[in-house]
Amino acid sequence: MQPTTLEKQLGFLREIDRLKSVVRQSPLLDKSRKENSAEHSWHLAMYALILNEHACGAVNTDRVMRMLLLHDVVEIDVGDFPIHGGSSSELQAEQESKAAERLFGLLPSEQADEFLSLWQEFERAESEDAKFAKALDRFQPLLINIFTGGGTWAENGVSLEQVLSRYGPVIQRGAPQLWAVCEQWVTRHFSEQASGAGKGAEHKGGA
Amino acid sequence: MQPTTLEKQLGFLREIDRLKSVVRQSPLLDKSRKENSAEHSWHLAMYALILNEHACGAVNTDRVMRMLLLHDVVEIDVGDFPIHGGSSSELQAEQESKAAERLFGLLPSEQADEFLSLWQEFERAESEDAKFAKALDRFQPLLINIFTGGGTWAENGVSLEQVLSRYGPVIQRGAPQLWAVCEQWVTRHFSEQASGAGKGAEHKGGA
Repeated sequence: MQPTTLEKQLGFLREIDRLKSVVRQSPLLDKSRKENSAEHSWHLAMYALILNEHACGAVNTDRVMRMLLLHDVVEIDVGDFPIHGGSSSELQAEQESKAAERLFGLLPSEQADEFLSLWQEFERAESEDAKFAKALDRFQPLLINIFTGGGTWAENGVSLEQVLSRYGPVIQRGAPQLWAVCEQWVTRHFSEQASGAGKGAEHKGGA
Repeated sequence: MQPTTLEKQLGFLREIDRLKSVVRQSPLLDKSRKENSAEHSWHLAMYALILNEHACGAVNTDRVMRMLLLHDVVEIDVGDFPIHGGSSSELQAEQESKAAERLFGLLPSEQADEFLSLWQEFERAESEDAKFAKALDRFQPLLINIFTGGGTWAENGVSLEQVLSRYGPVIQRGAPQLWAVCEQWVTRHFSEQASGAGKGAEHKGGA
């Protein structure tokens, strides 16, 4: 017997429960544990809802939120590729693409096509919505590192130049006002690290 | 110096990171741990996105998603009140209301008003959007219990009649088609429990 529309939808909603067990590199702000990709996706949707006025172009906030809610679902099959992990982006793209087809393919065909297409738009990062979504996806972990006194940068020996080059272009492109603020934080963070003043210290001011 | 708009927004986004540490009664589907309220909110937004065609009335899916993303933020201050916990709903409502004012009050005033009002609409459960959002907020933990062979029902000695009365009216009101399916699952679950056939068994079929 073919599964009904509702059965397919519930099959998908059941499968994506596993995103709650995909662990990211970034910690929670209280450093009690690492963040998982499901709660990260929730937080990013809230970022889009709150910060939409800082987008570079004219964005549709609801589309950006939808993109961010489903952008990491592929990690159920392929895991999280950390920004400072040095993995091959070509291999990653290929694996994620297969994962997207399998996972969204659990849905009734119309929804499968819709979500696959939205995910591909996010990955291409060309539309205004996707550029802003991508910017937030870089902005949130940067903020975690600032708020926790270094976070994954300290763990991975990442330099000021690497931070500027790995986060800068994407945030600048989708949300230049946010990048202007980031640059100040990042520069201050690394200058405090260099002078020893920032050792173990956490960013308290500003936000 | 007064905080800027962006500083207020980031202050709120920073504060709500704590929702990731509010632990609910329901487990993940693989039973590895309990679910937290941030990832629960993500999952519910996905439920709204996928299941909107099963809403009772004409709903605006994006508004429903927004409601569900922020509906539990108050738990940062007051914790999760479990459905089978027997707590006073009047006291709960008062505490949650204060929490909503404090938390949304961290935002710039226009956004604070907007989100407070959306949260209040959800709590009142009168609009079509709120009725559907409330239905999903009951449907998701019911589904977890079905998928995990009893979950919080078994832990709390909850009877078939209690399940029908605690979940039924809310799901029925916002998503009657979903409730029709729930009734079948729940009845089957308790009849299997009674016959001993369902002991430790998990629901595999259907969805």
